[in-house]
Amino acid sequence: MLLRLCQHQARRLYSTQRQQCLFPTRTIRSLLDTPQDNGNVAVRAWIRSVRKQKQVAFANINDGSSLKGMQAILTPEQAERLSTGACVELQGSMVDSPGKEQGKELQVTGVRVLGGCDSSYPLQKKRHSLEFLRSINHLRARGNTGGAVLRVRHAAGEGLQKFFTEHEFVQVHTPILTSHDCEGGGEVFKVAPASTPSGKPSEEFFNKPVFLTVSGQLHAEMLASALSRVYTFGPVFRAEESVTSRHLAEFWMLEAEMTFIDKLDQLLDVTEGSVQYATRHVMDHCSEDIAFFNKFVDSTLTERLAKSVEQPFARMTYTEAIEVLQKANKKFEFPTVWGSSLQSEHERYLASEYCQSPVFVTDYPTEQKPFYMRANYDGKTVACFDLLLPGIGELVGGSMREERDILLQAKMEAAGMDIEEYQWYLDLRKYGSAPHGGYGIGFERFLLWLTGLENVREVVPVPRWVGHCKY
Amino acid sequence: MLLRLCQHQARRLYSTQRQQCLFPTRTIRSLLDTPQDNGNVAVRAWIRSVRKQKQVAFANINDGSSLKGMQAILTPEQAERLSTGACVELQGSMVDSPGKEQGKELQVTGVRVLGGCDSSYPLQKKRHSLEFLRSINHLRARGNTGGAVLRVRHAAGEGLQKFFTEHEFVQVHTPILTSHDCEGGGEVFKVAPASTPSGKPSEEFFNKPVFLTVSGQLHAEMLASALSRVYTFGPVFRAEESVTSRHLAEFWMLEAEMTFIDKLDQLLDVTEGSVQYATRHVMDHCSEDIAFFNKFVDSTLTERLAKSVEQPFARMTYTEAIEVLQKANKKFEFPTVWGSSLQSEHERYLASEYCQSPVFVTDYPTEQKPFYMRANYDGKTVACFDLLLPGIGELVGGSMREERDILLQAKMEAAGMDIEEYQWYLDLRKYGSAPHGGYGIGFERFLLWLTGLENVREVVPVPRWVGHCKY
Repeated sequence: MLLRLCQHQARRLYSTQRQQCLFPTRTIRSLLDTPQDNGNVAVRAWIRSVRKQKQVAFANINDGSSLKGMQAILTPEQAERLSTGACVELQGSMVDSPGKEQGKELQVTGVRVLGGCDSSYPLQKKRHSLEFLRSINHLRARGNTGGAVLRVRHAAGEGLQKFFTEHEFVQVHTPILTSHDCEGGGEVFKVAPASTPSGKPSEEFFNKPVFLTVSGQLHAEMLASALSRVYTFGPVFRAEESVTSRHLAEFWMLEAEMTFIDKLDQLLDVTEGSVQYATRHVMDHCSEDIAFFNKFVDSTLTERLAKSVEQPFARMTYTEAIEVLQKANKKFEFPTVWGSSLQSEHERYLASEYCQSPVFVTDYPTEQKPFYMRANYDGKTVACFDLLLPGIGELVGGSMREERDILLQAKMEAAGMDIEEYQWYLDLRKYGSAPHGGYGIGFERFLLWLTGLENVREVVPVPRWVGHCKY
Repeated sequence: MLLRLCQHQARRLYSTQRQQCLFPTRTIRSLLDTPQDNGNVAVRAWIRSVRKQKQVAFANINDGSSLKGMQAILTPEQAERLSTGACVELQGSMVDSPGKEQGKELQVTGVRVLGGCDSSYPLQKKRHSLEFLRSINHLRARGNTGGAVLRVRHAAGEGLQKFFTEHEFVQVHTPILTSHDCEGGGEVFKVAPASTPSGKPSEEFFNKPVFLTVSGQLHAEMLASALSRVYTFGPVFRAEESVTSRHLAEFWMLEAEMTFIDKLDQLLDVTEGSVQYATRHVMDHCSEDIAFFNKFVDSTLTERLAKSVEQPFARMTYTEAIEVLQKANKKFEFPTVWGSSLQSEHERYLASEYCQSPVFVTDYPTEQKPFYMRANYDGKTVACFDLLLPGIGELVGGSMREERDILLQAKMEAAGMDIEEYQWYLDLRKYGSAPHGGYGIGFERFLLWLTGLENVREVVPVPRWVGHCKY
């Protein structure tokens, strides 16, 4: 019998009625977005709040698909077993709401409690501080801010990926484990097996020291030298000991690398295009969340984002930036002579005060930048840029890469690098070298820009920084 | 002057003519796909081969945007400086090709060598072994197999992401660094700063031992308990010492987690849907690459993939699978009594011989599976599944998760786990517990299925395994 069934064409030992919709219930967002679905529905969600009156009760339920969730109207008896935080299935019909905020609400006919919740639930209906919410990180996404952040994070990533796909980039997965530690200075993490069953010393697992990557750029260059346009989007790591609102031990970078561009300005165009495209994508897909952040976190947000996608970003060279700083009617702590590093105070002045918009600063002095950036013909600067945002600082860093093998090798030798170890990187120039450039977007900083939040720890679902690695 | 310019509305210190197309030249794929662009074009690419005859020369050029690249017709003089591996810009006009394979070819009017290439270039025009290509990994993607793999990898990831977006999943970035090591047994990597500037012992960076994740599942459950449907797609790590064609130290997993499903069959439907959707996406977007793999790697590929998206996958319980194995006209090395583990030989028989199709095996004995899987009412099995593919073995593992806090805690205690350390995980059940389930797709195994290749090291751009971490 068993055999017969299995050798039947469909080869199913037990059959399932495949539903048109893969899920037994629809999300609140889809129910509210497609109002033709009036009639009887079942909704599964968590209770954000219950208000019980004598004749009627109201519950706000939320399944994370939208900020505001759904308003449910119940009898006091139906509401009896409902409490904040509980997980429920409510059956009923969608009716037009008399209120202004909601187009539809749920007139409840049946209640099923899927998972109860007692009053020790930490997320009772009131405003909690971001610090407190971070201390209950495993429940943080159930709150308004936590949920909105993750929806915006999703949309921002999706927007970036759509941009690169539309421009024929191949998404590549550059490795997290790397034998190169040159870029991170001392601030890299080392990796070794926790224990080796064979009893071998753990350094011998890879036969060499291995680190967590601080950037996928060199590997992305390798792949761009075959596929022309690539990007990688994933976590990078830095054993940064300072505790600031801008530092995490694990954070995400989008790094794009493209061959066959010749000029820095082309790279700036792509950078501007990708940032504006992803911003627009978030504005389109998360308008409710953006309005929430505008109301409770940063009242300049909506206007700032709208302006940033309408106007081109400002562009100036480092040399011009130094002139601007020297002429500024302002006292800076750090020097503003040609050759000095742009400090936070300088970047802030350039983006927030002088340009009042995102600004590309290009062509920094060679000494300030890493070996792989392309030398300009002036002999003292490289074809690179930082994109500075008002209130954020550096969002993107990028450059044309040195594709002339003799110049590159000279620079690597001057930097004291092990040429043999990097022969593969020189090979990319030895065999069919192509002009190319690339850039990296600090994804958490982009999310600060998109939400108005001030601490990168708010925009990562499970943040890690010095002293903190819970779960 | 400078100030005046910058305070001008456009706020650009130097202006750029923004091009309609962001890139100075188009890719070969886009030139071949949109034949209205006849007329003069410039193409930048690498030379795969040059054939010089007395009157005419032919060059095959490739920029990684497609498998076959473009055929260029040159005069012998134009071809003089061209060699395999060189990077060139060819100007000319697109003309109809007299040959069968190519619709269009490039009649060259001008040649610019961007980067030369001498005869030491290891990728001369001939068939190379996969082992040799792996030994020159930094150039591997310039070959046919290497390029095709990365295009398929891109399309497979994109297909999965599109499926989850269409079904309202939120992509979440679960952490790589974790303080939990329970799932990996001994085979986890430990992380510590390479050096600490402050001189602190490195374990103190996080105040506890920290590991590289072996799975994002528990963190994904945390976020699904707020956002309903989430997925995470990223690298996981295993300090696996055995050298096989299926093991890497760093590999990619797609893990989906969804609340508000009640039955294992619903989870199977979503799993089947996602695998079939992504397979179809690859077949649609990489037909040329799939045909290449079918011709040179696995002649059953095209038919196998087509069948896998047309027919539903077979489904059987573990108990039924044991019955099938017992009745099989075949001698197995390992036991096939109820309670014994399904070994590779068993899985192979079930998928490749008995069902001759992907097959879900469900409801395994409790003892064989981890603590978080949901107990069935029979008291001896859990609501879980493995998806077995012919020739591959396990592609996906998943289960309903135990959402009943008392049962979960009892199982964790029985497993000797530190309850305090996992209180956050129990909290998800204490506060509004929701029925939920999820699964993980081994992305490299999926790529073996999609390409017919046999070794996971071929389908990762920069593979890492025991003894190997180059670059």
